Amino acid sequence: MDQLLAAVDLGSNSFRLSIGKVVQQDGVAQIYAVDRLKESVRLAAGLDDRHNIDQAATERAITVLKRFGELLSGFHPNRVRAVATNTFRVARNASDIVQQCEQALGFPIEIIAGQEEARLIFSGISNELPPSPNRRLMIDIGGGSTEVIIGKGFQPIHLSSLFMGCVSYTKRFFPDGRITATRMAQAQLAARGEFERISRLYRQTGWQEAYGSSGTAKGLIAVLQEGGLSRKGITLEGLEKLKAKLIQDGRVIMSELPGLKHDRSLVLAGGLAIMLSAFQELKIKAMAPGEGALRVGVLYDLLGRDSDHDKRHETVRQFIKRYHVDTNQSERVRRIALDFFKQLGLEDTPENQELERALGWAADLHEVGLSIAHDDYHKHGAYILEHADMPGFSNDDQLLLARLVLGHQGKMSKLRGLDITRATWRALLCLRLAVLLSRRRENQERVPVSLRTDGHLVEARVDEAWLEARPLSEFLLKSEEKEWRKVGTLFRLKQA
Amino acid sequence: MDQLLAAVDLGSNSFRLSIGKVVQQDGVAQIYAVDRLKESVRLAAGLDDRHNIDQAATERAITVLKRFGELLSGFHPNRVRAVATNTFRVARNASDIVQQCEQALGFPIEIIAGQEEARLIFSGISNELPPSPNRRLMIDIGGGSTEVIIGKGFQPIHLSSLFMGCVSYTKRFFPDGRITATRMAQAQLAARGEFERISRLYRQTGWQEAYGSSGTAKGLIAVLQEGGLSRKGITLEGLEKLKAKLIQDGRVIMSELPGLKHDRSLVLAGGLAIMLSAFQELKIKAMAPGEGALRVGVLYDLLGRDSDHDKRHETVRQFIKRYHVDTNQSERVRRIALDFFKQLGLEDTPENQELERALGWAADLHEVGLSIAHDDYHKHGAYILEHADMPGFSNDDQLLLARLVLGHQGKMSKLRGLDITRATWRALLCLRLAVLLSRRRENQERVPVSLRTDGHLVEARVDEAWLEARPLSEFLLKSEEKEWRKVGTLFRLKQA
Repeated sequence: MDQLLAAVDLGSNSFRLSIGKVVQQDGVAQIYAVDRLKESVRLAAGLDDRHNIDQAATERAITVLKRFGELLSGFHPNRVRAVATNTFRVARNASDIVQQCEQALGFPIEIIAGQEEARLIFSGISNELPPSPNRRLMIDIGGGSTEVIIGKGFQPIHLSSLFMGCVSYTKRFFPDGRITATRMAQAQLAARGEFERISRLYRQTGWQEAYGSSGTAKGLIAVLQEGGLSRKGITLEGLEKLKAKLIQDGRVIMSELPGLKHDRSLVLAGGLAIMLSAFQELKIKAMAPGEGALRVGVLYDLLGRDSDHDKRHETVRQFIKRYHVDTNQSERVRRIALDFFKQLGLEDTPENQELERALGWAADLHEVGLSIAHDDYHKHGAYILEHADMPGFSNDDQLLLARLVLGHQGKMSKLRGLDITRATWRALLCLRLAVLLSRRRENQERVPVSLRTDGHLVEARVDEAWLEARPLSEFLLKSEEKEWRKVGTLFRLKQA
Repeated sequence: MDQLLAAVDLGSNSFRLSIGKVVQQDGVAQIYAVDRLKESVRLAAGLDDRHNIDQAATERAITVLKRFGELLSGFHPNRVRAVATNTFRVARNASDIVQQCEQALGFPIEIIAGQEEARLIFSGISNELPPSPNRRLMIDIGGGSTEVIIGKGFQPIHLSSLFMGCVSYTKRFFPDGRITATRMAQAQLAARGEFERISRLYRQTGWQEAYGSSGTAKGLIAVLQEGGLSRKGITLEGLEKLKAKLIQDGRVIMSELPGLKHDRSLVLAGGLAIMLSAFQELKIKAMAPGEGALRVGVLYDLLGRDSDHDKRHETVRQFIKRYHVDTNQSERVRRIALDFFKQLGLEDTPENQELERALGWAADLHEVGLSIAHDDYHKHGAYILEHADMPGFSNDDQLLLARLVLGHQGKMSKLRGLDITRATWRALLCLRLAVLLSRRRENQERVPVSLRTDGHLVEARVDEAWLEARPLSEFLLKSEEKEWRKVGTLFRLKQA
C-alpha cells in the first residue's frame, strides 16, 4: 500500500485539497499527485467592514470543506495538514469560523503566519524545480496576501508576506468591476507602497530567475500568451498592454481575453495591479510559472524533509522502471550520444552542461513510448514526456526532452518551424546517430563513427570497411544527410 | 530476455521485415511488434516478357534484403521465417534469384504456394481481430496475387489464391499511366473472370463480416475516407466514385487524392479494378480494414500456435500490469458499473453483450492514464487506448474504449458531436456513476444507488440518508444531472 498524504489549503480566493502518494526508492522520496479538488470560495470577498467573514462566505467555505472531508474520512490525522492563510489571519471572527470549518472538514486547521506561508510556498516551488546554483525570486499573489521570497536551493534567504491580494484589491479599487486609468493608477500606487517596504533589501540580494505561482500568475500567463501580448511567461511589456486593453474596454470582457477562466476574471484587475507594481518596484525583467507552491510545500513538510539532491535523476530512474525501458539499449544509446556530444566541443557554459544532461536523459527515456506501441513510439514517448508529472523538471525541461524524443527517429520535417537552438539541433543529431548505430541492440566494441564540427558543418567520419559490411546502417546514415537538409542544418557523411 | 521472432515477407510489391516480441503469461503467448522495416521493391513490375525477373528489380530486392539482413544478423535461424510469394512463384528465373536473395538476407527463403499464403494471411488477420461466431471474408490484393479466404474463428473454410495483383494489373491495363473508361472496363472484366472461379462457392458459404488487408485495401480506405467518398471503410459506392474521378482526371493525380501515398499511387488503378470486381462479383456490401495479414500469420506460425481464446482478456490483463493499475479500485468500479448496466435492462443482443464487455474493460483500464500524470489522466488514458498495440482489439474496439475512458470523468462537453450510440451513452453513464461512487477508494457494503430506465430517461435512485452524510458525493451526483443535459441525455437523480 502506498503512503498517502493530504494537504488542504484554505486560501483567501480558492480552497484546495491535494492528495499525494509517496514513492520511495533507495531512501529518496518523491510525491506524485493522486487526487485533487479545487473550489473557488472567494473568502476574502466576504470580509465585511468590521473585518468579519460574513455568513454567505462562511457557508461557501463549509460546503466545500464538507466535500473535502468526505474524501479524507479514511485518513489518519497525522497524514493530513490543513492550513488557513490571510483572510483567517485578519478576520476578527476567525476562531469561530475555524471551529465551524474544522467540524466540516473533520481535521484540525492551522492558521499560519505570513512568514510560514512564504516558507511553505518557497519549499513547494523549489521541490518542483530543477536544482540551480542561482538565487530565485518567487512571488505568490494570493487572494488576501502576497508572498515574496528569495532563496537558493532549498534555503530561503528572505521571506515576506505583504498585506494585499487579488481579491482584496479588486474589491477595494474596482468594486463595481469598472476599470479606469485612475482606478488602476490608485491600485498600483497602493501596491508599490507595499513592495517598497522590501524592494531595497531584495534588490541588494538580487536573483537570476523569477517565478510566479498562484492563480494570478497562471491566469496572467494564459491571458498574455494566448492573446499574443507576450511570447512566453510574464513581461512588463505584456502587462502594460493588458492594462491598456482593460482600461480601453472599461472592464474585464471574457470574450476579449482568450485563455481567461471565469473564476479568474472576477479578480483579474486587482491581480494585474499588484503584478505590475512588483515588476516596476523590483525591476523584474521576465517571470516564469512556478508550480506546486503552498500545497506541495505542505506535502513535503508532512514527509519531513526537503531533498536537496537533483530530483530529476530520481524521476528518470523511476520512469525507466515504470515504462519498462530496456536499459541495455538505453545505456548503449546514452554512452554513444554523450560521446558524440563531447566530440562537438561546445563551449563549457551552464546552458551546454544542462543540454548535455538533457541529452543523457533523453537517451535514457527515448524508448518510453514503446510501452504504448511500436508504431510511432517516438510520438508516444514525446506525449508521455510532455504530459507526465515529473518531479524536479520544469515545463521547459519536459518540452525539451519531449522534442528530443520526438525527433530521435524518422523524418525531421515534423520539427521544422519549432523554436530550437543550434546547440539543441546538435544534441539531437548526437541522439539520432546513437540510436541509428544501436539498432541491432548489440554491444559494439567500438563506435565506428566520430564527429567533427567546423563552424556551420557537422561532419561524421565513418569507417569505410565497417560501413561496407552494413547496408542498413549505410542506407540510414546516408538518409540522415537528406533529413538534416530539411531543417537547414549542414550534416555530411565522410567515409574514411 | 524476451523471445524475439522475425518474419520477412518478399511480396510482389513491398518487402517487409517484422520483429516481434513474445510475451508469455500463464501459458498464453501474444506477440508485440518491436521493429519493422518496409520497402517498396515492385518486383512484379520487373517481370519481363519471358517471365524473368529483370536485373533492375533483382538489384532493388538485394539492396533491401541486405538492409534487413543487417538487423537480423544476431538471430538464430529457427526464429526467422522468410517467405516469398507470387512473383517468385511465376518467375522462370526464381531459383536463381532466390539464391541471390538468400545470400543477401543471410537466411533461407521459402517460396510459398498461394494456398499457404492464404492460410497465413487468414491466421494473421484473425489473430488481430476479436473472436466472433461469424464467418469472415478476407481479401488481400497483393502485387501479383489476390488471396480470398472465408473462415470462422481460427478455422479457414475456403482458401484461394487468384492470379492477379495491383502491380501486374496496373502494368497490363494501364502501362503508361493513362486511365480511360475502356481500359478500366477491360481490367475489371479480367478481374471478374478470376473471381468467377470462386464466387459461387464463396457466396453459398456466405459470411457476415468482410475485411481487406494489404496495401491496396489500406490505400483505398485512406483515399475514400479522406476524400469524403465513403464515410468509413470501403463501399461499392465509394469505389465507383473514385473510378469516375480517375477516368475524368485521366490519370492518378496525387494532389487530387488526399490520403494517397506516392508508392500506392503507382499501382492504384490496377488495385481499384480488382477491388471493384471483388465487390461486384462477390456482392460485398462494405469492407473494414484487416490488420496483420501475412507478417503476423508468419510470426504466430513460428510460435507454433493460433490461440483460439479471446485475446482481449489477455491483453487487458497485460495492460493492467504494464500500467500498474490499482486493481482494488478498478475491480470496485467494474463491479458497480456492470451492476448498473444490468439494471438498465437493455435487450440481450450481440451488440449489447459486446458493449457490456467493453464497459468491463473500460472499468479495468480507466486509470491507465495515471501512469502518466494525475492531471487530465482520463485524456492520457484515452490516448494510450487509442494508440496502443492491443492484440485482439480492432481499431473500433480501441476507439470505443478510448471514448469511455475519456468520458469517465470531468466535463461531458468534450464528447459533444461524437458519433456515439444511445446504448453507449448509457454504458458511459454506468461507468461515470461507478467511478464517482468509488472516489474514496474504499470497499462499500452496498451501493446506495440503483438505476431505472423508462424509455428516454434514466433515473438514479439514491439513498437519502447515505447522501446526507456525503456532501462530496451529493455535489458530484447533482453535477451529473447538468453534465448529461449538455449531451442531450436525460438523467435524473431521485432521493428516496
